[in-house]
Amino acid sequence: MADDRLTLATDVQAAIRSIPDFPKPGILFRDITTALMDGPLFARVCDHFSGLVREKGCNVVAGIESRGFIFGAPVAAALRLPLALIRKPGKLPWKTRSVSYDLEYGTDTIEMHEDAVKPGDRVALVDDLLATGGTAGAAVRLIHDLGGEVALVTFLIELEGLNGRAGLDDLHVDSLVVY
Amino acid sequence: MADDRLTLATDVQAAIRSIPDFPKPGILFRDITTALMDGPLFARVCDHFSGLVREKGCNVVAGIESRGFIFGAPVAAALRLPLALIRKPGKLPWKTRSVSYDLEYGTDTIEMHEDAVKPGDRVALVDDLLATGGTAGAAVRLIHDLGGEVALVTFLIELEGLNGRAGLDDLHVDSLVVY
Repeated sequence: MADDRLTLATDVQAAIRSIPDFPKPGILFRDITTALMDGPLFARVCDHFSGLVREKGCNVVAGIESRGFIFGAPVAAALRLPLALIRKPGKLPWKTRSVSYDLEYGTDTIEMHEDAVKPGDRVALVDDLLATGGTAGAAVRLIHDLGGEVALVTFLIELEGLNGRAGLDDLHVDSLVVY
Repeated sequence: MADDRLTLATDVQAAIRSIPDFPKPGILFRDITTALMDGPLFARVCDHFSGLVREKGCNVVAGIESRGFIFGAPVAAALRLPLALIRKPGKLPWKTRSVSYDLEYGTDTIEMHEDAVKPGDRVALVDDLLATGGTAGAAVRLIHDLGGEVALVTFLIELEGLNGRAGLDDLHVDSLVVY
């Protein structure tokens, strides 16, 4: 049952709850939990991502802790592909590779297990939100570090005004809902 | 394609990597990432959970941040059910209900949106690990607070020696792999 992309995007946008001044004054937060509470809609979103991952011939799905797991895991399970975890520091118990990136104030770090991606893997990075692109850019560097190719970077939501795509170079970036 | 429960448990146990002295000396950490890296195995685990959730007639799947999302989200998507997020404090942007619980030293808190579960909902709590049961017990209290019934609590792994079931009263608890 094919889902029209525009219909899906419209339905997702209608389901998202916008919350002013969270997490701090002046920020309009896009709350995806109301979209997750609509079971059939959530399933359609996962199907949409799965279609993109299949189209790009990816053999690994990577999800960024923790909201990235919400979309990455169903896609991996549906396509019977490995799920590679990208986590905050200190959470992964085995040998890790890490990358740090700049925030507005200070820096942040993400980690992957060294065996999560193998040289030659075609990796799909699936996440909920593209804002400034700091985390996604760091995730791409991590995957490259491990020898993987990032064949797809896909988001549920993109905040266009923050220009996050600029940090993702010439990768294939696909966002369903753009604000 | 039905999967034999014992075969699945054996395959998962073989795929899990055991890491001594993580996160601190004396603890043998069960690393599930090696099971997630086996795509077909991960899919079979999700199918197993989905079967249990369907059997219990649940209409909502709840996942605990962040590893619970890895199993809860695919189950919700596969069954086209709502996914209710249980998160660490300060992450959920709308009106929340929270529950605190004791740790070895200090306390921890988890939160849910007030509209994540409705009175009368039959909720399945899906998580990776039952250890002391502190987080799972707090999650059950949260769901009850919102008027939901916990019809199933299911884990990939149970560490039997820590007696986590004791805190889950007379709920239906199902663990695939028991150490």
